[in-house]
Amino acid sequence: MKRKIAVLGSTGSIGTQTLEIVRNNGDLEVTALAAGRNVDALERQIREFHPETACLWEEEAARDLKERVRDLDVRVVWGMEGLMEAAAGGPAQIVVTAVVGMIGIRPTMAAMEAGKDIALANKETLVTAGHLIMPLAAEKGVRILPVDSEHSAIFQCLQGAGGNPAHKILLTASGGPFRGWDRERLSHVTVEDALRHPNWSMGKKITIDSSTMVNKGLEVMEARWLFGVEFDQIQVVVQPTSVIHSMVEFADGAVIAQLGTPDMKLPIQYALYYPERRYLPGERLDFAKIGEIHFEEPDCRTFNGLALAYEAGRKGGTMPTVFNAANEQAVALFLDRKIPYLAIADLIQGALENCSMVEAPGVEEILQAERQARAYVEQQMEAGRF
Amino acid sequence: MKRKIAVLGSTGSIGTQTLEIVRNNGDLEVTALAAGRNVDALERQIREFHPETACLWEEEAARDLKERVRDLDVRVVWGMEGLMEAAAGGPAQIVVTAVVGMIGIRPTMAAMEAGKDIALANKETLVTAGHLIMPLAAEKGVRILPVDSEHSAIFQCLQGAGGNPAHKILLTASGGPFRGWDRERLSHVTVEDALRHPNWSMGKKITIDSSTMVNKGLEVMEARWLFGVEFDQIQVVVQPTSVIHSMVEFADGAVIAQLGTPDMKLPIQYALYYPERRYLPGERLDFAKIGEIHFEEPDCRTFNGLALAYEAGRKGGTMPTVFNAANEQAVALFLDRKIPYLAIADLIQGALENCSMVEAPGVEEILQAERQARAYVEQQMEAGRF
Repeated sequence: MKRKIAVLGSTGSIGTQTLEIVRNNGDLEVTALAAGRNVDALERQIREFHPETACLWEEEAARDLKERVRDLDVRVVWGMEGLMEAAAGGPAQIVVTAVVGMIGIRPTMAAMEAGKDIALANKETLVTAGHLIMPLAAEKGVRILPVDSEHSAIFQCLQGAGGNPAHKILLTASGGPFRGWDRERLSHVTVEDALRHPNWSMGKKITIDSSTMVNKGLEVMEARWLFGVEFDQIQVVVQPTSVIHSMVEFADGAVIAQLGTPDMKLPIQYALYYPERRYLPGERLDFAKIGEIHFEEPDCRTFNGLALAYEAGRKGGTMPTVFNAANEQAVALFLDRKIPYLAIADLIQGALENCSMVEAPGVEEILQAERQARAYVEQQMEAGRF
Repeated sequence: MKRKIAVLGSTGSIGTQTLEIVRNNGDLEVTALAAGRNVDALERQIREFHPETACLWEEEAARDLKERVRDLDVRVVWGMEGLMEAAAGGPAQIVVTAVVGMIGIRPTMAAMEAGKDIALANKETLVTAGHLIMPLAAEKGVRILPVDSEHSAIFQCLQGAGGNPAHKILLTASGGPFRGWDRERLSHVTVEDALRHPNWSMGKKITIDSSTMVNKGLEVMEARWLFGVEFDQIQVVVQPTSVIHSMVEFADGAVIAQLGTPDMKLPIQYALYYPERRYLPGERLDFAKIGEIHFEEPDCRTFNGLALAYEAGRKGGTMPTVFNAANEQAVALFLDRKIPYLAIADLIQGALENCSMVEAPGVEEILQAERQARAYVEQQMEAGRF
């Protein structure tokens, strides 16, 4: 019997690679696809994968799509209601949540409520609502399978833990394209500079986050929830070529690491078939060719987005949401060339200092904190303060 | 209830470190100790650990020991019979086989017959009799827990395999102190040169084996049996600082590695408490301090002992025994300054070409092959051919 999957964010980088895995294996069936507004891409995917349900975020685009696929037996839905239905309504056993941003939280929770396993590629879900998600997963007996490279690596390393708790998580970071730069030099960074990433092929927003190390900060917060550790147990290690995807240290000092080529299909496939490891076409690590793996400490003074993430994470409550939303808004403004590069971290810091804190927030309070943080960033921009 | 252990080779490097672990933990009980001829050291160990049985290889030494410990309730035995009794006779649940050389085979098999788990630090057991040992372990339902650093690392990496077979084993090697040297330069190597090893503190014989890469060859043969893989699936990767203790590659290209400081207590303790990981005092890896991990391919032309090991291993039968015995004899002659350094590999090669081959040998045939190989090396030495 085929394993049924729903893919939320199917036209993005993780989504298309997920569908590549479906294409390369004969035993996965796509029952739902959801995208933002790319009608052409989603139509192509519908014609290839024949989902029962297809969702577009924008109603107008969805209506256009509905007209285009009249010849097919597919239900076209839209908006948050549609996304919830795509996530939770169908027969999927596993939902790949690769939508970008906080719109991922509700559909993820709805899918969990419906008893579906989650292949989690949406960072915001755990960053902002980890305190809701992890207990819900335990209650519903569903799995949260990490899809990004680092958390999948840690998850893989922990498979052999044999009941022994992780003493420390060593989250590796490439350090981004500006590793070694000082703040003076960073102040001149353009959008084009920031969009070049040496190791991974990613979307724009995450490429910027990688360059600021905010991405690593979000990953630290995710790791805290996924693996049930304290922030003091998570150490970021810069390993510029990303050969080591992350590591776990145990009580006896043994370190287990997962290494690989920078191919996102590996963590995606591992999540889809877990605990089975399928053959995956592609390059293999050749250590003689690699020659050298280099390590250094992250420069948290220059790349203070990482330090701010630890701070927000330790405070907890709505502060991780504020961190994330302020960053999202600031990165959007930077990509629109409305603010300089270094303003991103400054705006995050300002938001953390100025937004109100709610302990143990529910989803509504999380979304409210998001709006407040975004509004703060907009106000600062409009006031020219950065 | 305390876990009962027997330590064969208790006064050697692995033996004393095993007893250090016993000393540092309150729940291990030593029921038997066996050593070669070091009466003083064994007496001290008896007085500290109160085993039921103590064995010395040499009868005279054993008689001396017996006299010395008359005040204690300990049975003193000697020779192969005594060693067999120390291994198999008492109430030990796990036997640490850290004797050096082929005398380890019979006691190991006797302990397995008696249903005891084996913490295996004796290389010769699997190299020469892997085809007997592994089926015996399966038949008796006993565990073979590897104690040396590389095999323990592979064993640790495989804990998380979740039923997925290892696609490839990446056995790391320091490359020894002469890495990068050519044969001209190696021809002048003295005993003193060869006894300096950069990373690990070990006995003399194994230090020489490490410098010739014969040790890595023996480890390849061990890995073949321990992990049930073909020789083509075992690749030696030179990683000079020994931070990575070994790695496993899976079908999807993911590589799981075990890393650590060069402390043999880690694999020993892991074997004794498996699958539990106890806290182990000592240094932890500090990646920023490590700075860099370097890899290269082994130079099998210059260090042809490694190539010869693959050859002997692929031929199978008594050839691994011939390889091992010729090496043991040649290393002893080198340490006695009777042959030059490069003659070690030459004598192994000569023995592989000149000794007779028995397929699927029993223990008697293995021991006979050993004698034949040793005799061959002696003859060559006496004839001045090297």
